[in-house]
Amino acid sequence: MNKILIIGAGRSSTVLINYLLEQSVTFQWSVVLADSNLELAKSKIGDYKNASAVCLDIHNEENRQKFIQDADVVISMLPQFLHMDVARDCITYGKHFVCASYVSKEMKALDEEARAKGLVFMSEIGLDPGIDHMSAMQVINDIKARGGKIKGFYSYTGGLIAPESDDNPWHYKFTWNPRNVVVAGQTTAQFLENGKLKLMPHKRLFRDYRLTEVTGLGTYEIYPNRDSLSYLETYDLQDTPTILRGTLRKRGFCDAWHAFVKMGLTDDGIHIQQSDKMTYRDLVEAMLHNEKGTLEERVANLIRVEVDSKVMDQLRWTGIFEDKLIEQKNASPAQILEHLLLEKWSLKPEDKDMIIMKHEFDYELHGEDHHLSSTLVMKGDDQVNTAMAKLVGLPLGIFVKMLMNGDYSTPGVQIPVMKEVYDPALEELKHYGVVFEEVEEGEELTSTQ
Amino acid sequence: MNKILIIGAGRSSTVLINYLLEQSVTFQWSVVLADSNLELAKSKIGDYKNASAVCLDIHNEENRQKFIQDADVVISMLPQFLHMDVARDCITYGKHFVCASYVSKEMKALDEEARAKGLVFMSEIGLDPGIDHMSAMQVINDIKARGGKIKGFYSYTGGLIAPESDDNPWHYKFTWNPRNVVVAGQTTAQFLENGKLKLMPHKRLFRDYRLTEVTGLGTYEIYPNRDSLSYLETYDLQDTPTILRGTLRKRGFCDAWHAFVKMGLTDDGIHIQQSDKMTYRDLVEAMLHNEKGTLEERVANLIRVEVDSKVMDQLRWTGIFEDKLIEQKNASPAQILEHLLLEKWSLKPEDKDMIIMKHEFDYELHGEDHHLSSTLVMKGDDQVNTAMAKLVGLPLGIFVKMLMNGDYSTPGVQIPVMKEVYDPALEELKHYGVVFEEVEEGEELTSTQ
Repeated sequence: MNKILIIGAGRSSTVLINYLLEQSVTFQWSVVLADSNLELAKSKIGDYKNASAVCLDIHNEENRQKFIQDADVVISMLPQFLHMDVARDCITYGKHFVCASYVSKEMKALDEEARAKGLVFMSEIGLDPGIDHMSAMQVINDIKARGGKIKGFYSYTGGLIAPESDDNPWHYKFTWNPRNVVVAGQTTAQFLENGKLKLMPHKRLFRDYRLTEVTGLGTYEIYPNRDSLSYLETYDLQDTPTILRGTLRKRGFCDAWHAFVKMGLTDDGIHIQQSDKMTYRDLVEAMLHNEKGTLEERVANLIRVEVDSKVMDQLRWTGIFEDKLIEQKNASPAQILEHLLLEKWSLKPEDKDMIIMKHEFDYELHGEDHHLSSTLVMKGDDQVNTAMAKLVGLPLGIFVKMLMNGDYSTPGVQIPVMKEVYDPALEELKHYGVVFEEVEEGEELTSTQ
Repeated sequence: MNKILIIGAGRSSTVLINYLLEQSVTFQWSVVLADSNLELAKSKIGDYKNASAVCLDIHNEENRQKFIQDADVVISMLPQFLHMDVARDCITYGKHFVCASYVSKEMKALDEEARAKGLVFMSEIGLDPGIDHMSAMQVINDIKARGGKIKGFYSYTGGLIAPESDDNPWHYKFTWNPRNVVVAGQTTAQFLENGKLKLMPHKRLFRDYRLTEVTGLGTYEIYPNRDSLSYLETYDLQDTPTILRGTLRKRGFCDAWHAFVKMGLTDDGIHIQQSDKMTYRDLVEAMLHNEKGTLEERVANLIRVEVDSKVMDQLRWTGIFEDKLIEQKNASPAQILEHLLLEKWSLKPEDKDMIIMKHEFDYELHGEDHHLSSTLVMKGDDQVNTAMAKLVGLPLGIFVKMLMNGDYSTPGVQIPVMKEVYDPALEELKHYGVVFEEVEEGEELTSTQ
């Protein structure tokens, strides 16, 4: 095997492309970078001799299959909904397939065929999902190997702004898909606490958050992800009574975001016909009814804070109370809010993003209760080499290297929860500064049970 | 024209069928009643000589087109999503089409073809939509004809239980589609107040309700419908600064329903894998977090009422706190709640339903402010001849009679907002007890504007 096809040359692929280009010199691979924008693809491969850029219309079957037929390993950096065409072609032509997205039902259904043909179909090998699986499984399996029993597993990730670039009262900027941030949590979240299922509806998600400390960085807020139970079997944690996966935000974010939720500004189900003729202030006014006082007083009253509170300062800062035209036609409140925040929460050229991933484990070992936390903090270098792009691209690239070199070959549709993948991958990631700090606390069992 | 095809012989068609069978004797029409259940259709036409029952598989094109080809007017009593096949056949074979459902985009798109072929395509001619259009337009056009200017239009409808059958603390039973009641209002509602757009998100819909009095029946609560603005142009009310359409519930309903909404029990977006192994009490427990006290105390605290309050009594009455197995697999909270309430809110054999429809108009006439209310209260006779079935079936039947007798022939896709339809229809409806009580209050303009 010596031919790699990367589909998608966009910004989020840059770190992956650079990693594979460098490795391709050492291992004498040929790399083909395909994108609908040929100039973009060309600019990404630069002077590398063993790489070429090609123009690909992903919806043109003939065009797509021509390049796939010619490769050994195909990496899809396309949006989720476009993976399946590529994956099916990989089955047809007997090619390995790698991507960073969640395994869909359709993808899962290819498992049998992939196995029968001896093909590796690896998904969820980016940051979250990806590094979260690998780093958590390494600790979980280590605790089990030492004879420990896991009683609680918590895992939180946040795509944040580095402290040196943090210059607004929300302590937040968009470092990834803005729409996902605005409509986050609209479905009731589920997790497990002391053996009991817990459900958290949207209207309480940003109100009933938890807190955690990150050494050197201060306090962060956690709200639960949609489904903490989805990896229960994959992680082999069926007997673990507490499992919570969540999203991290800097202290002060959730209370103010809850205000948007409570006002109705994150709703995406209604389209306001004449929204282009309204101002942001009109929109807030439309959400409030029958109360007395200034607009700000009525908002403060609705969300139960003082007019001169920090939360109100955060809302004011966004411009939501300003008499400025919305200019979007037939938009939902969520779309209007996203548009407003896009400007306010955009990264400046010199801004650095920051990823925090924190796992916590409660476990019992030799009759004693233990607590272990494992924390990754990584900042971006600049607007191209963001922490996000590095942490998505590097594990993908490292796994492709393992595959190319014959260090991994178990066929089937899978995610990286096996020791033979996560041990070497996490080891190599350390060289790129991806280091989890572990803190262990042990105490004697005080319970009389 | 002398042939009518009615598609659908279910319970909600009974009043319509009986009306048309009676008229068919007078006017010597032939009526064909088509249903997938031939025995049901046969039982509905009884001994009527000029009527026949046929077996129809609506998904069998040949079968469907055979009956449509043979008719002059086709009435679809099918669910909304099945109307289009019938409507397209009516275009193909040049038949008039009548139904009680909302005009979909697809239906609207048939307008030009229907006009070109001289076909009447009448929709929204049941109760709501239907009688609401006709009765409101009659008053609106009357006020305008007298030189008045409408400044506020309010229209509320409720499918309720008659006082003599009201034997539970919610003062409510299911008299129509239960699922629609449970998931009501999940999209932000919009209406117009003093010239300003107002938006009402789900989380406040059942908290910020309004009140209205119905003579002889007491106080009712109103929550806004999804879109009060959709008929603004159709009703020719573009200059009217206040327009609100809403749903009526007996006093005491909304506060308790808001408790379900706040707890998260009306959410339909999450499916709980092991819901069949949980009890209703477990489900409530799953919704509550980290507080102290008994389950009932924590619920009361969340919804800010006392444990011995009326709202808590209403919740207790549903059985939601009981340790009884849910028995539904992989169900959403909304599905579980619907299942629980189906039993509690079902009609007993002797129960009577009741429809209330109330329009209110603020208008200015000769420099004076006026207020006019127009209220319909109608009770069902029994479980078959419900108020709902009568008020949906009769306007449909009356319009079909007009069409058959050549009293209406304007072609195109339309709803009943024209005088030539609503005047004779409302007049005939009076003979069936469908009478709106009008109360007028006039007062001199006190404003100095």
